[in-house]
Amino acid sequence: MSHALILLAHGSRDPRWKAPFESLADTLKDRRSTPLRMAYMELCEPSLEATVQELSESGITRADILPLFFAAGRHLREDVPGQITALGEAHPDIELTLLPPVGQHPAFVDALAGIIDERAGD
Amino acid sequence: MSHALILLAHGSRDPRWKAPFESLADTLKDRRSTPLRMAYMELCEPSLEATVQELSESGITRADILPLFFAAGRHLREDVPGQITALGEAHPDIELTLLPPVGQHPAFVDALAGIIDERAGD
Repeated sequence: MSHALILLAHGSRDPRWKAPFESLADTLKDRRSTPLRMAYMELCEPSLEATVQELSESGITRADILPLFFAAGRHLREDVPGQITALGEAHPDIELTLLPPVGQHPAFVDALAGIIDERAGD
Repeated sequence: MSHALILLAHGSRDPRWKAPFESLADTLKDRRSTPLRMAYMELCEPSLEATVQELSESGITRADILPLFFAAGRHLREDVPGQITALGEAHPDIELTLLPPVGQHPAFVDALAGIIDERAGD
C-alpha cells in the first residue's frame, strides 16, 4: 500500500498568504520518506481535488488529510467531508481519511501558550 | 501603565468553533497577572471593538493584539490594521499594537512539524 499525507489549508485571495504553508510543506517533505502535499480548500492552488487526482494517478492508494486549521467550523464539519465523499466516489482506488484539525492537538495549544508568553511578556 | 493582551481569532458561523479558543484563553488567563481577552474579527462575540472599549473603560492604557492566524492575508494586512486605526481614533486613551500572527513564529512551525510527524506516521 502506498500512503501519502495531504496538509489542507484554507486558502486566501492574498498571494502572499500561501508562503508560510509552502515553506512548512517544503521543510516537512525533506523529513519524510512518503509523499506529502500541500492543498487548499479554496482561493489557492493546488485544490484538494487536483491533489487527490495527482496522487491517485501516481499510484497512491491511501491519503490522510490533515487540516491546518485552529478549530473545526462549517468548513471542516460540512464542506470538506462532502468534498472527500465526492472525491472518494470519483477515485475509488484511493482511500481518503480526514484527520482532526491540528488546533485540537495538546502540543499545538502548548506551543501557542509558549509563544503568547514570549511575545506578550507580562 | 496598565497593559493588556488581546488574542484575535477569525470567527465562524459555527458556534462550536469558538470552544478551543475560549479554552486556550482560559488556560492562559490563569498563568498571567495582566488582563488577557479573546476577541473575534467577525461572526463571533466579543468583537475587537467591544473588547477595546471594555479595556479602555477599565483603565487599560496599552493593549497588544496577537492574531491567532496561520498566515497574514487580506484580513491581517488590510482589514484589521484599518479597524485598529479607527479604534485608536475612537479611544485615544489606549495604545493599540498589532503583533505578527502566531503562525510566523518558529516555535509554531516546530510544533506543527512535530504534530504532523506524530499524527501521520511515515
